[in-house]
Amino acid sequence: MITAQELLSAQQRIARYIHRTPVMQSALINEIVGADIFFKCENFQKMGAFKMRGAVNAVLQLSDYQKQKGVATHSSGNFAQALALAAKQQGIKAYVVMPQNAPTIKKEAVKGYGGEIIECASTLEARESTVQQVIAETGATFLHPYNDYHVIAGQATAAMELFEDHHDLNAVFAPVGGGGLLSGTALAAHYFSSKTTVIAGEPLGADDAWQSLQKGSIVPQQNPNTIADGLRTSLGDKTFPIIKGYVNEIVRVTEQEIVAAMQLVWERMKIIIEPSSAVALAALIKNKQNYQHHKVGIILSGGNVQLNKLPFKKKVKNIIILLFFL
Amino acid sequence: MITAQELLSAQQRIARYIHRTPVMQSALINEIVGADIFFKCENFQKMGAFKMRGAVNAVLQLSDYQKQKGVATHSSGNFAQALALAAKQQGIKAYVVMPQNAPTIKKEAVKGYGGEIIECASTLEARESTVQQVIAETGATFLHPYNDYHVIAGQATAAMELFEDHHDLNAVFAPVGGGGLLSGTALAAHYFSSKTTVIAGEPLGADDAWQSLQKGSIVPQQNPNTIADGLRTSLGDKTFPIIKGYVNEIVRVTEQEIVAAMQLVWERMKIIIEPSSAVALAALIKNKQNYQHHKVGIILSGGNVQLNKLPFKKKVKNIIILLFFL
Repeated sequence: MITAQELLSAQQRIARYIHRTPVMQSALINEIVGADIFFKCENFQKMGAFKMRGAVNAVLQLSDYQKQKGVATHSSGNFAQALALAAKQQGIKAYVVMPQNAPTIKKEAVKGYGGEIIECASTLEARESTVQQVIAETGATFLHPYNDYHVIAGQATAAMELFEDHHDLNAVFAPVGGGGLLSGTALAAHYFSSKTTVIAGEPLGADDAWQSLQKGSIVPQQNPNTIADGLRTSLGDKTFPIIKGYVNEIVRVTEQEIVAAMQLVWERMKIIIEPSSAVALAALIKNKQNYQHHKVGIILSGGNVQLNKLPFKKKVKNIIILLFFL
Repeated sequence: MITAQELLSAQQRIARYIHRTPVMQSALINEIVGADIFFKCENFQKMGAFKMRGAVNAVLQLSDYQKQKGVATHSSGNFAQALALAAKQQGIKAYVVMPQNAPTIKKEAVKGYGGEIIECASTLEARESTVQQVIAETGATFLHPYNDYHVIAGQATAAMELFEDHHDLNAVFAPVGGGGLLSGTALAAHYFSSKTTVIAGEPLGADDAWQSLQKGSIVPQQNPNTIADGLRTSLGDKTFPIIKGYVNEIVRVTEQEIVAAMQLVWERMKIIIEPSSAVALAALIKNKQNYQHHKVGIILSGGNVQLNKLPFKKKVKNIIILLFFL
């Protein structure tokens, strides 16, 4: 079990390698929801997502010998970039196993932060065997994107900062994918803001966390189908027990609700958040009747989106495309 | 001539009706440009643009009799929304003349802030005659979007705040359309930050300000052709002399440079700015060799964009559309 002291140590350890992100408010969204909402803007975090916190905390706890050999992970998402940048900050090597068909833009980002990419087939088996091979050849230390106590403790620091800035939140919402951010947020609330209930938002099309809580044991995610690409992963054996113990509720939301929440933040707050971040706000909006006049925190997890691939409807072009296919 | 005292009074007068917007920095954009850049985020201003400042300052200086009768303007852009909201704050009526073919989204925004829309044909003549008719019928006071000393003094307050936060800027960049923001920024620098040079960014496709300075008299904008929809207007007889007297340089930028600067801010800073705002950064990037290691302010003028009509290339869809037309 991660202790309060371990969370405080993580916060101190990573402070000079991350941004203390701002907390923003929107009078208009408050009015729409009927609550007093505090958005913790991890979209403004280094490399654009909270993942930087966990990666830095894990990298900083390697031994000198481990640092010499570097770190390795498999990820096609934000953790790949976060680990590459965290390793670069410490002057160590990062090996990132990515599927051949991962978007070029994501590969470029990892390379931009100095990471070395090893391509593999796009199955989980291929990823895992490739990363094992990399570790065997290089002696690098494997770091899991979320099922790792150092990573979880790092992710907890976002909520810790939010609770320091706002002592009296009735509830805090975070999205859940593999559960690193959610379990960290739940531990932060447990130790440092015990009157704050912890609620997760999860896409209906990737609701393994909701199903796992229903069943009482981990239900792996099969064929996830959601725009929230950061939330397609399954809970791990380290994140699940924390979520089971300390998360009050998981609220599932539809794809339409995710896009609507994302559009609301873009239009009203003029900040860019990725679909995974919108899932937390969508969950609050769905159950807003329970939070009237409450103080509610929302962890906006990140802001890495492909600007030429946005979900906002292009009316005219869609009609043309429709005509073309008819 | 607007005095320093009038600017200070404007700042005090409007303070509780506007946001004091944050100043943001981006380590990555600093690295790309080679300067230390301070972005004044008027995209986070109420109703999403600096126009709120001038509208509030003008509305607050109406007599009680004038307030009873309301205010009127013709605008299809941010000033229409700003005036509607500023009037609503003071409990007075706002009549906004808009062309019939103005985007529905802009009409809805004005109505959302409580403004009354009067539609007209889409010529300048129709707009002016319609607003005259509205004034004759209602007794409302006409407020010009930029060619008005109260409006200019209000717009100056964005740069005044920036100079208060950062005393030692070598230069400040603002976009120029009708010249309200630019003339206000130039006066603010003249009175409160006299070592700061003032540079404007202007689209090549709407370069009336550049041409006016070349000629020494106002050259009206004919057939503007730019994505920066806030900058298609001509200078006025109140803004031109201030710009002539106090602006050091106007830098013209291409449409490609505008979109590239806009994309840079969206991707790296995770904030939404409108094309007009990107013009100021594009001008700095174009002449970046002159600003190496300098401290440079940029007024990000606003963040009101149509999310379903963005300029970032959609590769696949474009190919499909191309195929359709072949």
